[in-house]
Amino acid sequence: MDYKAAFADALDKVRSEGRYRVFADLKRHRGRFPNATWTRPDGSTSEVVVWCSNDYLAQGENPVVLDAMKAAIDEAGAGSGGTRNISGTTRYHVELERELADLHGKESALLFTSGYVSNEASLSTLYKILPGLIVFSDALNHNSMISGIRGGRGPRHVFRHNDLAHLEELLAAADPAAPKLIAFESVYSMDGDIADIRGTVALAKKYGAMTYIDEVHAVGMYGPRGAGVCERDGVMAEIDIIEGTLGKAYGVMGGYIAADAVIVDAIRSYADGFIFTTSVPPAVAAGAVASIRWLKEHNEVRVKHQERAAALKARMEAAGLPVMPSVSHIVPVLVGDPVHCKLISDILLEEHGVYVQPINYPTVPRGTERLRFTPSPAHTDGMMDDLVRALEKLWVRCNIQRVGGQAA
Amino acid sequence: MDYKAAFADALDKVRSEGRYRVFADLKRHRGRFPNATWTRPDGSTSEVVVWCSNDYLAQGENPVVLDAMKAAIDEAGAGSGGTRNISGTTRYHVELERELADLHGKESALLFTSGYVSNEASLSTLYKILPGLIVFSDALNHNSMISGIRGGRGPRHVFRHNDLAHLEELLAAADPAAPKLIAFESVYSMDGDIADIRGTVALAKKYGAMTYIDEVHAVGMYGPRGAGVCERDGVMAEIDIIEGTLGKAYGVMGGYIAADAVIVDAIRSYADGFIFTTSVPPAVAAGAVASIRWLKEHNEVRVKHQERAAALKARMEAAGLPVMPSVSHIVPVLVGDPVHCKLISDILLEEHGVYVQPINYPTVPRGTERLRFTPSPAHTDGMMDDLVRALEKLWVRCNIQRVGGQAA
Repeated sequence: MDYKAAFADALDKVRSEGRYRVFADLKRHRGRFPNATWTRPDGSTSEVVVWCSNDYLAQGENPVVLDAMKAAIDEAGAGSGGTRNISGTTRYHVELERELADLHGKESALLFTSGYVSNEASLSTLYKILPGLIVFSDALNHNSMISGIRGGRGPRHVFRHNDLAHLEELLAAADPAAPKLIAFESVYSMDGDIADIRGTVALAKKYGAMTYIDEVHAVGMYGPRGAGVCERDGVMAEIDIIEGTLGKAYGVMGGYIAADAVIVDAIRSYADGFIFTTSVPPAVAAGAVASIRWLKEHNEVRVKHQERAAALKARMEAAGLPVMPSVSHIVPVLVGDPVHCKLISDILLEEHGVYVQPINYPTVPRGTERLRFTPSPAHTDGMMDDLVRALEKLWVRCNIQRVGGQAA
Repeated sequence: MDYKAAFADALDKVRSEGRYRVFADLKRHRGRFPNATWTRPDGSTSEVVVWCSNDYLAQGENPVVLDAMKAAIDEAGAGSGGTRNISGTTRYHVELERELADLHGKESALLFTSGYVSNEASLSTLYKILPGLIVFSDALNHNSMISGIRGGRGPRHVFRHNDLAHLEELLAAADPAAPKLIAFESVYSMDGDIADIRGTVALAKKYGAMTYIDEVHAVGMYGPRGAGVCERDGVMAEIDIIEGTLGKAYGVMGGYIAADAVIVDAIRSYADGFIFTTSVPPAVAAGAVASIRWLKEHNEVRVKHQERAAALKARMEAAGLPVMPSVSHIVPVLVGDPVHCKLISDILLEEHGVYVQPINYPTVPRGTERLRFTPSPAHTDGMMDDLVRALEKLWVRCNIQRVGGQAA
């Protein structure tokens, strides 16, 4: 068995499909976001504007977050030193879980090492706790949710994205006595569309299902205290399990669920991916607490964030660029071809100081390859003008279809 | 469907088996490890000595680690802001992977958010990359390895713990043409025994298998530069994939693999648990780099660590306490009953200021419930004397079998 050849073959396959990833080596400079220094593979550097960060509100450089992290390092040191059960629960973890429960108006919350792990561990564990569980999963749910649902190895049905008629059809056809869970997201991160949460809750009630919502691209950014779209839409109390992240708008790292105490306690007691892993460092927990508290009180950042997204969409539409119909802070621009998408991204980085990753299959369906821009409150009008000018040039150069038929 | 009752039932089951976990709420104080403040559920506090931390060498309070973390926060901010591919690769991540490759004498390394994720994602992905793969897995492998192997959904054989004759039997019976992987650990964390790595490598060569070793309870602590037991035993170059953690002896957080570049690149390109998750904060990566470099140069810490473990074992044996036959820095003491084990742990904490978690099923087999002590270089003779005196009292009080028949 020639193992090296087998690994090389696997890589050739990725390359031949145009989806071999080269990671951009970046260095952000505190206080200068979205500017960053990009180091090329040859060691040379240049300055770029980051247009694809999930640090949506620039909380990653908010002094209250950084000060809380440094204070925790000074007080308690670096790592937690253990799993949550074996010496790895600290004051900081306890406070963070209380803060998260308060944020979502739930009795309890549970911290995981990442949003990925929170979805994977929670969803697979629900199958263990509820024998016979059937999960109804939106077709565009994130990989971490799919991984958790598959890992549970029980029955599951996938409903067409945001299609409540299809969801109802599947619910109605299932055994009325079986435990059921509807798993969906609020903001879908690659399209920027938002689920009909109230409609989903109504179906859940009608068919006796629980609800599990992933709000990772919404927490911090929607709702008067930043608890997400469920808060904004006034349906937070009607959702059974809310999952979120501390690594995007909150600017740090980690994931969580918030729910009734008995639900949280059962998942805490059965989820291997929670039990058998070292907890996050105290500094991470402390930074997250500071970030959540600050964003609860600063709704003006959310207003500004939405204004910036609207401003970028308007500029792009005026330039005839094919902005996809997002209703959120995410601004996707359709390219429709993986090679073009990568090429445009490379030229933007090398010639225009614009850093935006190509989003290709398998992250999005083939034929819908896109550039996904995430304007933050720190992205200025000038940066937007530069970006749109660069895209206009490239759209002509790469001869890509523009809305309005200006280029073909 | 009464969901609340179902969750409550699941919790009752855990309670009835004596394995409901109550997390001790601790706060370490930088520079005072292994001392910590314990907060009771009623809010009152007392001072304890932590005897079960995996911050084995107290690197979690080494100033070089803390300074590196704070410097990274000052320079680059809090979180990374994205997945490795989408704006989440920074200078700090690149440097850490280079440092890890150097540590293990491999071409390349890949950083994950935790050791749990590194095992789960890497092992499940190897099934994708090597069609027809058969994994041979030690019976006492960690939950994260089992999760990864099961997640791969391919053929697997479990060999009796550290039993190379059984492993060879299984290898000899398998299709000679099939790709094979032997997955095992160096230091098994609950017993403190160590695998015959050289013997395992010889079998791998004989039967054309790859080798995957988990060194999470060894990196930083064994070998002249702290690369683990493979380094100590002179077999590091013959192992295909070495997996380790930054959350135990290195005192921070995160996990990794080190291997040939083509192996690392393939896993990087196929592992969902790596691709679709936010990367660790720059400060975590910076702290890990500092910790690895420092421990490379400070072998005296490893010498002291082993001396402390030997000192504790000697004291316990002299007192007739049933120390299990560990050949490593881990000092397990057999109790053999989950209720007694939890009771002793509770009394130690409440009455003696000794914090050590009971290790019950499913972490260890039923009937082998134990207390697991992890003396660090910071644990003094005085602390050991206090601990052994407390245990002696409790062994009499709880009427537990002692070696030498002093109590029955």
